[in-house]
Amino acid sequence: MSHYQAPLTDMYFNLFDLWQTQKYWDQSPALKELLDQETASAILEEAAKVAAELIAPQSKLADQQGVQWHAGEVTTPDHYKTCYQQLCEGGWTGLAGDPEYGGMGMPKTLASMYEEMLCSADIAFSLYSGLTAGACVALNQHADSATKAIYLPKLYSGEWSGTMCLTESHAGSDLGIMRTQATPLDDGRFSISGSKIFITAGEHDLTANIIHLVLAKLPDAPAGSRGISLFLVPKFMVNADGSLGERNKLSCGSVEHKMGIHASASCVMNFDGAVGYLIGEANKGLACMFTMMNYERLAMGSQGLGAAERAYQNALSYAKDRLQGRTTGKDTNKADPILGHADVRRMLLNVKAINEAGRSFSVYVAQQLDQAKYSGDKKAEARANLLTPVTKAFMTDRGLDACITAQQVFGGHGYIQEWGMEQLVRDVRIAQIYEGTNGIQALDFAVRKVAADNGEVLNEMLAEISEKLALRPHSALSNLLDEYKNLVNELLIEGKNESQLLPTVACDLLDLSGYLFYGYMWHQTLAALDPVKHSADFIESKQLTAQFYFERVMPKAQGLIAIIRQPISALVEMRDELF
Amino acid sequence: MSHYQAPLTDMYFNLFDLWQTQKYWDQSPALKELLDQETASAILEEAAKVAAELIAPQSKLADQQGVQWHAGEVTTPDHYKTCYQQLCEGGWTGLAGDPEYGGMGMPKTLASMYEEMLCSADIAFSLYSGLTAGACVALNQHADSATKAIYLPKLYSGEWSGTMCLTESHAGSDLGIMRTQATPLDDGRFSISGSKIFITAGEHDLTANIIHLVLAKLPDAPAGSRGISLFLVPKFMVNADGSLGERNKLSCGSVEHKMGIHASASCVMNFDGAVGYLIGEANKGLACMFTMMNYERLAMGSQGLGAAERAYQNALSYAKDRLQGRTTGKDTNKADPILGHADVRRMLLNVKAINEAGRSFSVYVAQQLDQAKYSGDKKAEARANLLTPVTKAFMTDRGLDACITAQQVFGGHGYIQEWGMEQLVRDVRIAQIYEGTNGIQALDFAVRKVAADNGEVLNEMLAEISEKLALRPHSALSNLLDEYKNLVNELLIEGKNESQLLPTVACDLLDLSGYLFYGYMWHQTLAALDPVKHSADFIESKQLTAQFYFERVMPKAQGLIAIIRQPISALVEMRDELF
Repeated sequence: MSHYQAPLTDMYFNLFDLWQTQKYWDQSPALKELLDQETASAILEEAAKVAAELIAPQSKLADQQGVQWHAGEVTTPDHYKTCYQQLCEGGWTGLAGDPEYGGMGMPKTLASMYEEMLCSADIAFSLYSGLTAGACVALNQHADSATKAIYLPKLYSGEWSGTMCLTESHAGSDLGIMRTQATPLDDGRFSISGSKIFITAGEHDLTANIIHLVLAKLPDAPAGSRGISLFLVPKFMVNADGSLGERNKLSCGSVEHKMGIHASASCVMNFDGAVGYLIGEANKGLACMFTMMNYERLAMGSQGLGAAERAYQNALSYAKDRLQGRTTGKDTNKADPILGHADVRRMLLNVKAINEAGRSFSVYVAQQLDQAKYSGDKKAEARANLLTPVTKAFMTDRGLDACITAQQVFGGHGYIQEWGMEQLVRDVRIAQIYEGTNGIQALDFAVRKVAADNGEVLNEMLAEISEKLALRPHSALSNLLDEYKNLVNELLIEGKNESQLLPTVACDLLDLSGYLFYGYMWHQTLAALDPVKHSADFIESKQLTAQFYFERVMPKAQGLIAIIRQPISALVEMRDELF
Repeated sequence: MSHYQAPLTDMYFNLFDLWQTQKYWDQSPALKELLDQETASAILEEAAKVAAELIAPQSKLADQQGVQWHAGEVTTPDHYKTCYQQLCEGGWTGLAGDPEYGGMGMPKTLASMYEEMLCSADIAFSLYSGLTAGACVALNQHADSATKAIYLPKLYSGEWSGTMCLTESHAGSDLGIMRTQATPLDDGRFSISGSKIFITAGEHDLTANIIHLVLAKLPDAPAGSRGISLFLVPKFMVNADGSLGERNKLSCGSVEHKMGIHASASCVMNFDGAVGYLIGEANKGLACMFTMMNYERLAMGSQGLGAAERAYQNALSYAKDRLQGRTTGKDTNKADPILGHADVRRMLLNVKAINEAGRSFSVYVAQQLDQAKYSGDKKAEARANLLTPVTKAFMTDRGLDACITAQQVFGGHGYIQEWGMEQLVRDVRIAQIYEGTNGIQALDFAVRKVAADNGEVLNEMLAEISEKLALRPHSALSNLLDEYKNLVNELLIEGKNESQLLPTVACDLLDLSGYLFYGYMWHQTLAALDPVKHSADFIESKQLTAQFYFERVMPKAQGLIAIIRQPISALVEMRDELF
């Protein structure tokens, strides 16, 4: 019963009116031949068809069928083959790929809108091509040209897929203690042995080959995370002409039974002397893999937004159809749509205000990535690095909130499987966990991104917000910005004396940053509204939603500030046995 | 893999040291013969065995087997029969029942601790006896003695079970528009026809008979909610001697497939001219049913707390066992328990601070109910009515938060079914929805409980907190109390001119009230700590957890206050087509 239409109007608004990405495309030598506003719109319209008409209507079926493991083989839901084939034929699997190797070369701003749609349609399905795209980024940046020439074209075309094999059962977020071994062979290749868990798309029936990017340790590797190397380990060996050779010595031992994304194969992968190729420098594997991780972390944000967008659409349509209670008249036998109830409006406006700011933020961060990639803009790269953990954690935390809130609009019907709302909650929940838990994102943000450069890159971002506020004053946002600046300065000073301060406040600080940045998004949205371009309803809707955000969402920041300012002593002094 | 131990030490602390319920029992003519501290402890110890050793270890199995519907019959998980039999044999099904009809006559304070344990063990299982207990409350209060003499003993003994049949597919929270008809028969009985949905335990294989309490309309009934009557409709007719007669004309059309509580039968119940008996006065059925609803709403709070307690225990034990990252030393190959990480401690302390306050609040509200029931204390009754929606909504909202937070401690392992954490999240989610959604609870609180008497009953509660603060000053709680008083006064005045104000702020106001009341719980906890009675570790743990609550949980109230103080115009002015 769950439906979905891609929010194209809002996507166009964000790309072309708010952030005017087409202007950047026009100036970029790599992009101006490929893309203009019209082409981009046509691409997104096509993506909307695939996502909304082909994939989304079958997401419930995917949840019900799930993946099946039998004797090392993994079967995906029946319709996944057709859907995946359509992705390949439409060139979607290589959307952001390097044109030198057969990719379409599209910028991240455009790709992020496509990713959102695919996640709205079916998060589990989106992972098969999503992981591949991430693997391609890592290969394109770190592999030699011969390797790229062999692997990238088939990964971009979707003929093969990719994975990232990091986690081991005893080594989750702590990769330094991993045990998978890489033993050099005489021919320059390596023999990989070890067991990895939670490997998304580790085994499945959608592609002819699966290219695993595996982290492992060389025999002489230094201890800890500085002794990890990255290896390419194909499921089937690849001959010089690109044809498939014998089966490599690796197998899928089982798949996990999970809360959601049932149709995503989360595999235990056993490498038993599998042949692998070193990618990048020895012992520098973690850095190589982080190229992929950062790409994935932005896609995680799209999962939060995508699920929340679909949840909103369904809750809104239910709120218009469902008749309960009297809001317009006094006829006790005639009920009105629940959309008339203040609390239902409050729930929907909360979701709408968060989703639309999330979409703006997504394009904003993607644009920083594009400037880093296509223009070598170091400031933009630093900005993207700063915002990556916020995108991953804040967008997925708010994504879960939004799905739960939208589910609540349905009352009892939200809890039964028929309406699809409970699946959105179950599916989106994983995005807060994988690719680095949101707690780890917060630590990364507070310690590695903010404190490590003493707030320099963050302050550049804050200066940008100040500049925009000078052009268009907004007291609530200005006040929050000032409080935020003071708070961060205090934390940076106090954090030097109290090592537990930043780790303790990290999650609340990331949340607070998210509310501030989303406020910036709404501020710029208001500035971009134009009666010549936009309908009166579109403008009024954006204005009222922005007002709602500033008045009834952003003030949550006051609670976070109050918490961050408190002592951390209770947490520090709590001995383990007192828990 | 999910384990559970009943938190008996904390339960005893809350009952006997914090609220000293045994003193009330000693003074109550109805209770002093039945119960003292020693007996109560023995009862809870026995309950702990049933919950922790018998039911809890099989909750995953219950989730996997679920209920099966076939041709109108509903099969519960295999082990439910044994577990239910144990409940009956132990007298647990009649724990709070009227001794005149074979109940054990235990007070709600004790019963609420039992309910928490049962919910920790398996929420789905707890519903079969939980609904029965609610039905008994309604029958005991509104049925005539002949009816009570026939039905109550077999309901208390667990031989039969009960239901509440309110919801229809087009009439969820809006009972006034229900269509189920009750036609008078010549013999004073009624013929009931109509279809009800979401009927918990509507059909199952645990008891010999099922006694449905059904809301329906008499032919001449006034329109809306004032035209609803309550009927007792047995699955099997009951002969004068209490033996079972022929099958009544009602059947279970199907069961719902839900997000969680898979082993609870949520039934479509079809009444096709079933014979029913009027309970209470004609057209006063809603009031009769609300007796039951209020009882159930308190039990809902226990569901939130019960799931969260089990989630905490499992997350804590995982945090002690799981080795990731270095917190104590510099050996890069040796990881420490994740309990050492500030963010893990933050998550666990959040859950602990909420759970323990929730347990105190549960006993506090139960004590008000006991005073109302056993002493006819009208002030206590009013207090219980005021706090009922807070108990239901705040305890279940925080229950979901707590389960999600505890799940997050597990990282990827929290998302897979093996560890049981995802089941707790799925199971507890329903408690925010059924028995009146939390949005409806908030409306009830703000409009019917606070505004309707111009804050009188609320102010009595606030005066009590002030008195306790006078005895033992606490600046953070005092400040919040003052802010809260001012805010409520403003809302009561402004609410008279703006009808949408209270409905719009209701949820945030309920949340704010919850954080204030939980602050009161922690304040009184501190006052109740006694080095003579309690171990040094117990005292230190409570003190640090209280400190954490006041410093790092309660300040969320600042965000809520900031939001409540903002205009509501955006929400009011948002036309339906702008969503």
